[in-house]
Amino acid sequence: MSGSGFGKCFSVSTWGESHGEGLGAIVDGCPAGVPLSLDDIQMELDRRKPGGQFATSRQEADKAMLLSGVFEGATTGTPISIALFNGDKRSGDYKELCCVYRPGHADLAYDLKYGVRDYRGGGRSSGRETAGRVAAGAVAKAFLRELGITVSSYVASIGSVCVDKDRLDLEEVLRNPLRMPDASAYAKAAELCRQAIEDGDSLGGVVECFISGVISGLGEPVFDKAHAVLGHAFFSIGAVKGVEFGRGFDSARLRGSQCNDQYAGADGRVAKLSNNAGGILGGITDGTDIFARIAFKPTPSISKEQRAASSSGESVQLSVKGRHDPVIPPRASVVVEAMAAIALADLAIQSLASKVTDVKSILKSRPSSFLQEQ
Amino acid sequence: MSGSGFGKCFSVSTWGESHGEGLGAIVDGCPAGVPLSLDDIQMELDRRKPGGQFATSRQEADKAMLLSGVFEGATTGTPISIALFNGDKRSGDYKELCCVYRPGHADLAYDLKYGVRDYRGGGRSSGRETAGRVAAGAVAKAFLRELGITVSSYVASIGSVCVDKDRLDLEEVLRNPLRMPDASAYAKAAELCRQAIEDGDSLGGVVECFISGVISGLGEPVFDKAHAVLGHAFFSIGAVKGVEFGRGFDSARLRGSQCNDQYAGADGRVAKLSNNAGGILGGITDGTDIFARIAFKPTPSISKEQRAASSSGESVQLSVKGRHDPVIPPRASVVVEAMAAIALADLAIQSLASKVTDVKSILKSRPSSFLQEQ
Amino acid sequence: MSGSGFGKCFSVSTWGESHGEGLGAIVDGCPAGVPLSLDDIQMELDRRKPGGQFATSRQEADKAMLLSGVFEGATTGTPISIALFNGDKRSGDYKELCCVYRPGHADLAYDLKYGVRDYRGGGRSSGRETAGRVAAGAVAKAFLRELGITVSSYVASIGSVCVDKDRLDLEEVLRNPLRMPDASAYAKAAELCRQAIEDGDSLGGVVECFISGVISGLGEPVFDKAHAVLGHAFFSIGAVKGVEFGRGFDSARLRGSQCNDQYAGADGRVAKLSNNAGGILGGITDGTDIFARIAFKPTPSISKEQRAASSSGESVQLSVKGRHDPVIPPRASVVVEAMAAIALADLAIQSLASKVTDVKSILKSRPSSFLQEQ
Amino acid sequence: MSGSGFGKCFSVSTWGESHGEGLGAIVDGCPAGVPLSLDDIQMELDRRKPGGQFATSRQEADKAMLLSGVFEGATTGTPISIALFNGDKRSGDYKELCCVYRPGHADLAYDLKYGVRDYRGGGRSSGRETAGRVAAGAVAKAFLRELGITVSSYVASIGSVCVDKDRLDLEEVLRNPLRMPDASAYAKAAELCRQAIEDGDSLGGVVECFISGVISGLGEPVFDKAHAVLGHAFFSIGAVKGVEFGRGFDSARLRGSQCNDQYAGADGRVAKLSNNAGGILGGITDGTDIFARIAFKPTPSISKEQRAASSSGESVQLSVKGRHDPVIPPRASVVVEAMAAIALADLAIQSLASKVTDVKSILKSRPSSFLQEQ
Repeated sequence: MSGSGFGKCFSVSTWGESHGEGLGAIVDGCPAGVPLSLDDIQMELDRRKPGGQFATSRQEADKAMLLSGVFEGATTGTPISIALFNGDKRSGDYKELCCVYRPGHADLAYDLKYGVRDYRGGGRSSGRETAGRVAAGAVAKAFLRELGITVSSYVASIGSVCVDKDRLDLEEVLRNPLRMPDASAYAKAAELCRQAIEDGDSLGGVVECFISGVISGLGEPVFDKAHAVLGHAFFSIGAVKGVEFGRGFDSARLRGSQCNDQYAGADGRVAKLSNNAGGILGGITDGTDIFARIAFKPTPSISKEQRAASSSGESVQLSVKGRHDPVIPPRASVVVEAMAAIALADLAIQSLASKVTDVKSILKSRPSSFLQEQ
Repeated sequence: MSGSGFGKCFSVSTWGESHGEGLGAIVDGCPAGVPLSLDDIQMELDRRKPGGQFATSRQEADKAMLLSGVFEGATTGTPISIALFNGDKRSGDYKELCCVYRPGHADLAYDLKYGVRDYRGGGRSSGRETAGRVAAGAVAKAFLRELGITVSSYVASIGSVCVDKDRLDLEEVLRNPLRMPDASAYAKAAELCRQAIEDGDSLGGVVECFISGVISGLGEPVFDKAHAVLGHAFFSIGAVKGVEFGRGFDSARLRGSQCNDQYAGADGRVAKLSNNAGGILGGITDGTDIFARIAFKPTPSISKEQRAASSSGESVQLSVKGRHDPVIPPRASVVVEAMAAIALADLAIQSLASKVTDVKSILKSRPSSFLQEQ
Repeated sequence: MSGSGFGKCFSVSTWGESHGEGLGAIVDGCPAGVPLSLDDIQMELDRRKPGGQFATSRQEADKAMLLSGVFEGATTGTPISIALFNGDKRSGDYKELCCVYRPGHADLAYDLKYGVRDYRGGGRSSGRETAGRVAAGAVAKAFLRELGITVSSYVASIGSVCVDKDRLDLEEVLRNPLRMPDASAYAKAAELCRQAIEDGDSLGGVVECFISGVISGLGEPVFDKAHAVLGHAFFSIGAVKGVEFGRGFDSARLRGSQCNDQYAGADGRVAKLSNNAGGILGGITDGTDIFARIAFKPTPSISKEQRAASSSGESVQLSVKGRHDPVIPPRASVVVEAMAAIALADLAIQSLASKVTDVKSILKSRPSSFLQEQ
Repeated sequence: MSGSGFGKCFSVSTWGESHGEGLGAIVDGCPAGVPLSLDDIQMELDRRKPGGQFATSRQEADKAMLLSGVFEGATTGTPISIALFNGDKRSGDYKELCCVYRPGHADLAYDLKYGVRDYRGGGRSSGRETAGRVAAGAVAKAFLRELGITVSSYVASIGSVCVDKDRLDLEEVLRNPLRMPDASAYAKAAELCRQAIEDGDSLGGVVECFISGVISGLGEPVFDKAHAVLGHAFFSIGAVKGVEFGRGFDSARLRGSQCNDQYAGADGRVAKLSNNAGGILGGITDGTDIFARIAFKPTPSISKEQRAASSSGESVQLSVKGRHDPVIPPRASVVVEAMAAIALADLAIQSLASKVTDVKSILKSRPSSFLQEQ
């Protein structure tokens, strides 16, 4: 079955393996007339690139090629194909892994499912696969920009270190390599990371994603509720083990009178007095900000020795070599944004047909040729 | 757009409103030859029916009709249609709500999206919609039974009261109306519920779902990972605000060496020494149990007075009348099982084509007519 | 796999067997605000009902129930469920067919595929299945009516008798039971039918479908071209063996200079000087009428004796009993319209997102709640 | 909406424009373990390449790159990405067409739909787009080869010249540039082509496609009947105006006793005594050969002067320059095979879940890891 596509109307297909020829994405269903340049795409890919002391030392140029669907600076309504060729492949690093299942990795599951597996750097299950998502996400962001919707993110916790919500400084996100919006939390998390690296170990963390300028009416009852589609998108990112919206798991501990967002009338419109729901009610956006939290497990590749098994069912001791991020969330935050943007772009287009008056206003204004009597 | 369908191969469509003629589901894509009776369906619907002191007093017979797709006690491969007609409708209870947006409900969002809304009892956004899911889930369970897969659930917490994992008693789930597997926790939660009802308030809680007898190789890389599809399914249930798999949000606080499930060889097979991952690696099941936690917010309908707004944008004070469950998880646990079963049934069928050897063994053994020379 | 659904945005699912409890359809994705009544649906079903001397004598009331998705006379944007219960079932007529494969029928193919089969009246493969399509088609027509699009049809030929295109009289279609727009051709075709019935035989024929008021820009390059989606829709009707658009197979005999529809400028717009293409260019509608021809094979059920085989592989002589239309096109023309309407409704909604300016005009005008500082 | 994808399980997405950077396809859902090399793909692309006196003089190397999804000579179950870069682009040829609508082309329809258009060589609506289909079709053929299914085609008529069915010589197809299986018909058709070229005109024709080694049970009732999906596939090819299966339009002129394929028992199996149905009954294959005829209109690009119109609605006289095939079917026959193979591959995988016994035999035999008590 084909699981490498996402989206019903604004749809994305990705391809590629960690150590194959390259990877990329096709975006189909983006409306014509969206301003889009290679720079828009490259800028997002550059945000995803490893960098700094807390990232893998693999150096990939990750220069995108924009191969179709854009003409004279704007989309044409046809598929947008983006490709990146792999450069810094050191497949030799992985030869010894062909017959060993690394704990916490997809190795065993792929073998159980397919019987074969491109073991070089994790193949399709590598985090490198997300480059295609980020490229496609850049297209989604360009589309959402036209609607005034902005998708942002930061790292909210690394291991046991959480940012202090009372002193969030979003500009700080750009200043530190862990992308934490709190300089003091960053200092502690950095120390934690250094310690983990020294121990040949790794750390988990939480990414928070917030979307502003949201248009109301996005999300389709009953199975394609906005947070169901966003949840699908987030859980599709490798290493994600938990997702929550608004007050999330905390909601389960509240009473209705504490959790409900009460309303007030204001100038003929309806104002919410709080946003515990995270911008989504009954699965449909109401125009207030969407807020989600995404939990990442620690990087499974660690050099610390672990018990593992071979494909022939023998126990082995394993110390995973190769180049790996000791902590996933800083780079993954860009992927979270990409998936949020893709999901929201799709929901935006899905929602166009909600009212027949809207449908008529678009379709009846469309020009047309006609048959002339000769 | 059509959001009332779920599943790519084993697909479910539901229809119906709380106070309309009725509701139901079509299951398409169920293989031929699955033993299925009306009883299988009715039994699940009965588990979902309100009952006991902590549930709405609305009395629905919820007698299912099995209208197609079953012949001589087994499925035929054609669509299975199940319908329930609404009985105990007191739409009058809701007339006054036609122009008021209840806090925590979908009322406002539906109006923003569609411009119109069947306000009787929440219409399509009512929890009553889940009867269709449970009916379809009964079909999915019947199919999974053939594969040896079992889906179960219980209520793990109500408000601040959590069950004690060290003394889980699954038989206790059937004995108390809050479906908690711990008599002592139940006693405390029951007291909490009584207090909330007395205060005209409501409570949230967490459902835990575990799936055993899981077949390996379910889940499609990269966007239809098993937990992405399950996550989509769970988040599509009304009032769900958070979902986690395996160790979930806790994973984010662990180190790799703590979180990774290490392996051992055993008799030529591979054994896991722990199951922090909750049965899914790289989005693909490995055959061990799947474990998920689903957080529900408190029932939004409370009689306690709240600030609300009218559709013309005026502030009002609102006390929600009608018949409502003061706490959602006990009845929702059946819905959680239904959605898990539907998602897993779909993934099972999606995974049939993973290996060409399997494809050949099915297709090449199929009988065929042939053309005879005359 | 689930093949009982059609449409990506305006989607239809049908269920039901010839001699089961009943049959019906769910329409999901119809915009809110489309005026719709049970009468709209019943009227189309009545057009499909058998009647007259050239139709089966099975008498079905075919009274539709409209179960959801409509509130106060208009659609609400939620699934529209329509059901019909079977009345005049004489399953006994079919008992003897449980183990015999009727020539020209789906009996053998179903057994090869599923291993089991509801043999009563053809089960799911019966022409009776089309009642669900016609019900759904009535919803599609109600939607298209809002856009000014009209779908019509007539029977263009029965056996070797063709209507004379130079004297089409569309009102005649309503006057004769063969729905031919030419009284003289009708007279000859009626005689042919009488002869076939007398011989215990049946006849084929061609239905022509024309769609006017078409909106330009419907059809998605490259795989969902308008005539590809319409072609899919038409070929999904039982007994259809050929489909052509515009000049169709004739085009293959023409030169480019004869076949191309040339243009002229007219008041700043573009006029076509002919419509050989049948309203579709490059798979996209241009606003001129769509024209299609659909070929039906003769009714396979004939009382004339034929060579047949049993499920155990033995030769038998067979005379098919039961009640059957001796010629399919007159009643099938209503089904052709239904499928054309469903396909076009889906394409209309799919095309809403073609231009970002349209997307913005809809989404940016949508009302929204907002967060008020307390 | 996204129309550049085809297939539900074995799915193909194509991208690219005639004079952009290149074009290509992603195949997702191909089972793991199918032997596949770049040569398999290049061989099909070479068959599609222009050549000989009756084809465009545009010279494209059309060298495919196989970028993902294949490891050590076989598919891995992950997306297979294939790309071709454009070489011989003479976009200058098309500058003058930016504001003129060519008769018989998609120019006008694209402008009506999208408001913008990549006018260079037809952009996405160019016949060059089919290179992506042929590349994907090569993957489908490699998969079908494993099942013993073969897809073939030839040109059955050019203009008014038809091959003589009584003396088909399939080897002749490889010997003449018009791919006609009848040397005498070829000679006449070649003369017709020369005449058309001399007149600055073009010709239409019919391709016949036959599929042997077909597995029974392919095709899903009721909307995804085998010929509905194949019909969709064929009508998605540019310039196709008609499709028929088996006896096709001829069936409409027959009586049931002539058209029905009668059966005989033979050694415990069921033999058909004729194949008027073209291998499909009730939308499901029965194992006998599938036969289809596909009608192509004449190439719309002709140098003969025609009446045309500009985008500002003014009449112009137009002689289309550039390099064009004077007759489409010879090269299109390869595209017909590709689409047939893709559609059939998808139907084969869709049909895997028809019987629960098959599902069990695959899934229950799958290996699995297990949780070991420590």
